[in-house]
This record gives sequence, C-alpha cells and structure tokens, in this order.
Amino acid sequence: MPTITVQLFEGRDTNKKREYAQALTAETVRVLGCKPEAVEVIFVDVKRENWASAGELWSDKS
Amino acid sequence: MPTITVQLFEGRDTNKKREYAQALTAETVRVLGCKPEAVEVIFVDVKRENWASAGELWSDKS
Amino acid sequence: MPTITVQLFEGRDTNKKREYAQALTAETVRVLGCKPEAVEVIFVDVKRENWASAGELWSDKS
Amino acid sequence: MPTITVQLFEGRDTNKKREYAQALTAETVRVLGCKPEAVEVIFVDVKRENWASAGELWSDKS
Amino acid sequence: MPTITVQLFEGRDTNKKREYAQALTAETVRVLGCKPEAVEVIFVDVKRENWASAGELWSDKS
Amino acid sequence: MPTITVQLFEGRDTNKKREYAQALTAETVRVLGCKPEAVEVIFVDVKRENWASAGELWSDKS
Repeated sequence: MPTITVQLFEGRDTNKKREYAQALTAETVRVLGCKPEAVEVIFVDVKRENWASAGELWSDKS
Repeated sequence: MPTITVQLFEGRDTNKKREYAQALTAETVRVLGCKPEAVEVIFVDVKRENWASAGELWSDKS
Repeated sequence: MPTITVQLFEGRDTNKKREYAQALTAETVRVLGCKPEAVEVIFVDVKRENWASAGELWSDKS
Repeated sequence: MPTITVQLFEGRDTNKKREYAQALTAETVRVLGCKPEAVEVIFVDVKRENWASAGELWSDKS
Repeated sequence: MPTITVQLFEGRDTNKKREYAQALTAETVRVLGCKPEAVEVIFVDVKRENWASAGELWSDKS
Repeated sequence: MPTITVQLFEGRDTNKKREYAQALTAETVRVLGCKPEAVEVIFVDVKRENWASAGELWSDKS
C-alpha cells in the first residue's frame, strides 16, 4: 500500500504529472514487488513563495 | 492531542466539511476518551489531476 | 479516495486502533458518500517528548 | 537535513513569510548546529473552512 | 526541490531502500528535468497495525 | 493555529528537543503575532537509512 506524496513547485501541466505518476508507480512495482493497484501518488503543488532553502524563499532567488 | 489530516478530492462545500469535522471529532472523543478541545482536523483539498491510483490520474479515469 | 492520517500519542493498543479505524472509516463513508474500499487510515504514533504545545513538551507536563 | 513544514492559516503576505522562514532557519541552525543549506521550510496555507478545532470550523468561529 | 515522502509497510531492508531511493530519484530527474541534488526522498515505515484499508487493519487481514 | 512538523535525523535528546520546541514556538509567536497556546510542534525522528539526498541514503554517506 505504498503512498507517495510529492511536494514540488507548481507549474507542471497535466501531461507532465501523468508521465511522472506512471514512472513513480512503475518503479515502485518493480522494486517493491507490489501490485500497481496498491500504489497511490499524490502531488502537492507548492508556490515558490512558500518554500525556503537556507532561509531564502525561492521566489526571491535570482 | 490527536491531529487528523484528511486528503480528499476537492469539491466538498463548507456544509459537508462542517458535518465531517464534527463527525471525526465526535468519534475521536468517544473512542480515545480525549476532550473535544484536544482534537484538530485539517482538510487538504486535492485536485483529481494531482492524485493517481495504479499509475492513472483520477482526472483521466472515465 | 480519502486518506486519513492521524497523529496521536503512542500507547494505544491494537484493539483501540481497530475500533478507531472502523469508526473513522464508517463516518467517512456516511458523510462523504464514498465506498469503504476508498478509505485509507494511517496512524502515526508520536512520543510525548516529540510533541510540544505552547512551547512545552508533553513529556514535561505534569 | 531538517525539513520544517508549517501549516498555517492563509493570508500572510510574502514579507511575513520571508521573515518567518529566516527566523525558523536561524533558530534551527543555532539549536541543532547544522548548516543553513541543510534547512528546508515549506509553508502550507490552510483556509479557515479547512481547519476545525474541537469540531468547529474556524470559518464558523466568531 | 521535489521532496518525495513514501509511506510503506515496515520490513524493507537497507538494500531495498537504497535501490528504491535511487530509482525514485532517477525518474524524478528524468521526467521533471531537475538536478539529482534537488531531490529528497524520505521513507516512513508504517506498522501493519497502523494502517487500515476499508476500515480493516492490515495486521488483521489474512 | 500554526502546526509545525519537523522531520530531522534521529539522535537528538530530550534537552535539545525542549530547547528547539521553545525556540520555534517563540519565533512563531513573535513573527506571526499569535498566542503561544496556538502553536503545536511535532518532531518526526528519521533514521539515516530512511532519508536520501541526490539518490544516496544518508547511512551510506561517508
């Protein structure tokens, strides 16, 4: 029952998410040996102003 | 201090969320024996294009 | 596909978790109108030394 | 590699988030003794209708 | 800066986790076009008594 | 009602967590202007074999 939550910057379109969800699911099935039906993938779109690395918002990085 | 985070498809209105938060809180109080004031419920609205089961986005399921 | 994650203090036994999971699932089905098979519940046991309210660890509260 | 996820009510502007991310990062570096580059901060804006305490939505509290 | 959190049943050994982390990272780099250094993977081991599907704990499933 | 979840490597003792929880809470109160009672802090101890950066487990890094 692996549940994969991916926090990523907003802006990827549905085609990209479709491809990415398929890839994550396929690798999970291959490596863990579970059924595809057991795999859930949830994307969390994060705005650049909501993510800081080393104390600096990504919306501020040039 | 139970904190209940619910990831669910977007689209439920405030009336539904109000009823659902009350129900989850009431059952938590009844089963765990804690005070209502100790219970937090957070809803996370997820778009169908951001959730995949078995590698397929829910926005693609017919 | 509601996924319910509950952070709670460690110490509840399996009987209690079984009853609680059933209760949360039943209320989710009743209020949201989804199938039981769509509901996932994940418990996260938290040590009292890993949870602070108002800046005080619960392991320090008398 | 501390990763700090903050769920907070929506409505804080970018200036406030910038100041808050800096403060959380600085305290993490000071107390844990890690490098700033190791610290990630992610803000999750939550609507008042998506958060209930004691079974009551915050959008309903007067 | 994709951060991938995987909730999975406990019991996978370090070799399996190493292979899985590499696979998830490689696919993320390939599909999203980011650098490997930007990808974080965090595994959350979940006991079968802490996960219920359709209201039934996995430790109870035969 | 800010809820701060910190994923960090396991190994910090209770004294360190106490100091860190106080610091995070104090900065939250100062910057956001909320009451201390509104601030929750939850620590999630992560094993080095459960965290990978750039596809490499931290338990493998020399």
